[in-house]
Amino acid sequence: MGDQVKFVLDESQMPKDWYNLASDLPVPLPPVLHPGTKKPVGPDDLAPLFPMELILQEVSQQRHVEIPEPVRDVYRQWRPSPLFRARRLEQALQTPAKIYYKYEGVSPAGSHKPNTAVPQAFYNREAGITKLTTETGAGQWGSSLAFAGALFGVTVQVFQVRVSYDQKPYRRALMETYGAQCIASPSNLTQSGRAILEKDANHPGSLGIAISEAVELAAQREDTKYALGSVLNHVLMHQTVVGQESMLQMEMAGDDPDVLVGCTGGGSNFAGLVFPWLGQQLRGGRKRRIVAVEPAACPSLTRGRYAYDFGDTGHLTPLTKMHTLGSTFTPPGFHAGGLRYPGMAPFVSHLKELDLIEASAYHQKNGFEAGVMFARAEGIVPAPEANHAVRGAIEEALRCKREGKSEVILFNLCGHGHFDMQAYTDYFAGKLVDQHYDEAELAMALAGLPSVSEPG
Amino acid sequence: MGDQVKFVLDESQMPKDWYNLASDLPVPLPPVLHPGTKKPVGPDDLAPLFPMELILQEVSQQRHVEIPEPVRDVYRQWRPSPLFRARRLEQALQTPAKIYYKYEGVSPAGSHKPNTAVPQAFYNREAGITKLTTETGAGQWGSSLAFAGALFGVTVQVFQVRVSYDQKPYRRALMETYGAQCIASPSNLTQSGRAILEKDANHPGSLGIAISEAVELAAQREDTKYALGSVLNHVLMHQTVVGQESMLQMEMAGDDPDVLVGCTGGGSNFAGLVFPWLGQQLRGGRKRRIVAVEPAACPSLTRGRYAYDFGDTGHLTPLTKMHTLGSTFTPPGFHAGGLRYPGMAPFVSHLKELDLIEASAYHQKNGFEAGVMFARAEGIVPAPEANHAVRGAIEEALRCKREGKSEVILFNLCGHGHFDMQAYTDYFAGKLVDQHYDEAELAMALAGLPSVSEPG
Repeated sequence: MGDQVKFVLDESQMPKDWYNLASDLPVPLPPVLHPGTKKPVGPDDLAPLFPMELILQEVSQQRHVEIPEPVRDVYRQWRPSPLFRARRLEQALQTPAKIYYKYEGVSPAGSHKPNTAVPQAFYNREAGITKLTTETGAGQWGSSLAFAGALFGVTVQVFQVRVSYDQKPYRRALMETYGAQCIASPSNLTQSGRAILEKDANHPGSLGIAISEAVELAAQREDTKYALGSVLNHVLMHQTVVGQESMLQMEMAGDDPDVLVGCTGGGSNFAGLVFPWLGQQLRGGRKRRIVAVEPAACPSLTRGRYAYDFGDTGHLTPLTKMHTLGSTFTPPGFHAGGLRYPGMAPFVSHLKELDLIEASAYHQKNGFEAGVMFARAEGIVPAPEANHAVRGAIEEALRCKREGKSEVILFNLCGHGHFDMQAYTDYFAGKLVDQHYDEAELAMALAGLPSVSEPG
Repeated sequence: MGDQVKFVLDESQMPKDWYNLASDLPVPLPPVLHPGTKKPVGPDDLAPLFPMELILQEVSQQRHVEIPEPVRDVYRQWRPSPLFRARRLEQALQTPAKIYYKYEGVSPAGSHKPNTAVPQAFYNREAGITKLTTETGAGQWGSSLAFAGALFGVTVQVFQVRVSYDQKPYRRALMETYGAQCIASPSNLTQSGRAILEKDANHPGSLGIAISEAVELAAQREDTKYALGSVLNHVLMHQTVVGQESMLQMEMAGDDPDVLVGCTGGGSNFAGLVFPWLGQQLRGGRKRRIVAVEPAACPSLTRGRYAYDFGDTGHLTPLTKMHTLGSTFTPPGFHAGGLRYPGMAPFVSHLKELDLIEASAYHQKNGFEAGVMFARAEGIVPAPEANHAVRGAIEEALRCKREGKSEVILFNLCGHGHFDMQAYTDYFAGKLVDQHYDEAELAMALAGLPSVSEPG
């Protein structure tokens, strides 16, 4: 028998709880502020947008939050997800490093996003909500919520960033196949959308604008709430099934990771992989390097300011402290639409400030080069977002080669690229260019950050 | 804990052998004939196209053929594949039937095709072959051979049927991502292609033409062989890992299928699921209904003639006895490109003649209707080919409902539809029409069948 490359858990080993890193933090997260009063928000302030169960999870300090049985029932379709050793990639790189990857593309929607879409649809259905609005970039999140909505009988309306809506018609087709409605954002269905379109009828859209549109509609109706695919604490917590499983699987593999790598847009797949490992470290365990990889064209962690900001362009959300390029910043239309968010999860930002994680940034051609190499070695074509993590892992493996070290690298392959093949076609045709943001626009967006005298 | 819906085998339960149904046949398969002499061919006649190991498998009467360890090593990445109970689909249909499906979309290329692509690439590499030519319809096969070629260092050249090449650019992108070369067929690279293009420069192509082109090139060079994704005995045998696993999984589920359903183009995914079950029956086991579902626009089993015919349009292949619409028949350009083959695997045809299997046919809108229902219930979007099997299974479940029977239905969900979303888009837009073949063309193609006085 050849060397083992796949590490599979039994259904009985699927996590029963989500892990809440807030319980192990050495310094608590800065509070979320009301945009009017600039005072910390309470659960009631969030009630127009989210069901109470999710609001309580958002502020919970409990270490473990039980996963409801109906959610576990759906998870079981694809969880526990496999963990692979990338032996063929190691050979191609001729590195002494061992490379492992957790593969979340096995979910029906093809990414890690259903890990939170399913509980969000469930808790909303339990609260009597019949309709959810949301935003999506590349469509990974929108199609995941569409899938979850179909299972729990909740109608889903998705505002998809215009540039991705045009670039990736097949993600839209997937959302529609699941029964959801998909609208290009900015749209004329909302005040926030109309305000943008009046200034620029051909605006490419952004996640910040799409969030404003979805939030605006949800706030207007009792039977409608809003769902977010990343950034928020409860969303990150739902993703910790990924990291928890990976801990058992690395044990099966008989290896202990020296470096953990994940790509970051809002931060959820990164958090899902690394939070359980980091929690172990904070409770006295081994220290590991943890690397967040972001797009160089939207580099919130490496180039953004750590400051209070709105989560959306229309300024309808509360203020959170995070690494931000400014809520009005519109990133260039590169292919990793899921990473085109000018802010970073407050939780991930906080960890960066505490020096518990590192960050690096790559342009998209670097990402696709890594993705093609990975596909030819491992057979799986990564999503453009995931290509950033692949690149980050390859860089670590090449460093190990230079240094002659056989370190263990674990990264999160958060989704497949089956709906992103136009990007690969463009890459092979030499049409894919590295896009750069406008420095003046970034400076203006940062200058427009809200003025907040910090509490405490 | 909810009712179990996923049945997963351990790696140790992955089959060690392929199962050869020829060993259990009550009546042997008719011989393959040389097109010139009309006498049975010997291994040497096939040697220009295939390595000897595969030729021996083609004519083997051994019940079990050992799967080489390097092939099992690759299989392990996604095998054993999961078997699911479609509880949510059962609820949607309100049927007393139990519906199970074996899911082959978990392979890197997204279908059952790598089950044979991997051993074919392996045996060719072992024989010192450096290049493989092949045909593909929708691209499931081409991308699978491209994947396998990348793993074993064999160059792959794929002739893709023109209509699919144009309809599905993203399958082409996948082949190129794996490093293969993809050419629209008919092409001007071959005599067979040029002959077609001279008559009709806009010919939509067909699998029969693409096979001629691939065979023609392979026959010209010592270092190049040809690989076929279906139809041949050894290809069907490689797929029996599917059915063997499903037997263990149905035992885990505590149910015994009354009806087995698979879609048929060339016949390989159908054979993969049903041959092990049928072998059990032929060795004295329980009789089960076995239903092949084919496209009504290319209905070889339900409307074809059982006769000796060429496997390709250019008449470069040997003659095999099969259900055929005539080797010159060009099926309409419907979306299930993998089922657009005017012949049927000789082995499957033989079983139909022996009344061991049934056949039915559906038009593509019926298929997509079933596929969308399945996606909303189960989360997985089936390939247009697989939609035929879904439709067949749903029809059986609805019959059970009418008859008040709680039969157990098992079908093969042979691949996902991630590269076929344009078809779903067209379906939702009302642009998808049922295509009908030309009766006069069929009559002409059948009239052109080669005249053979059968041996024996």
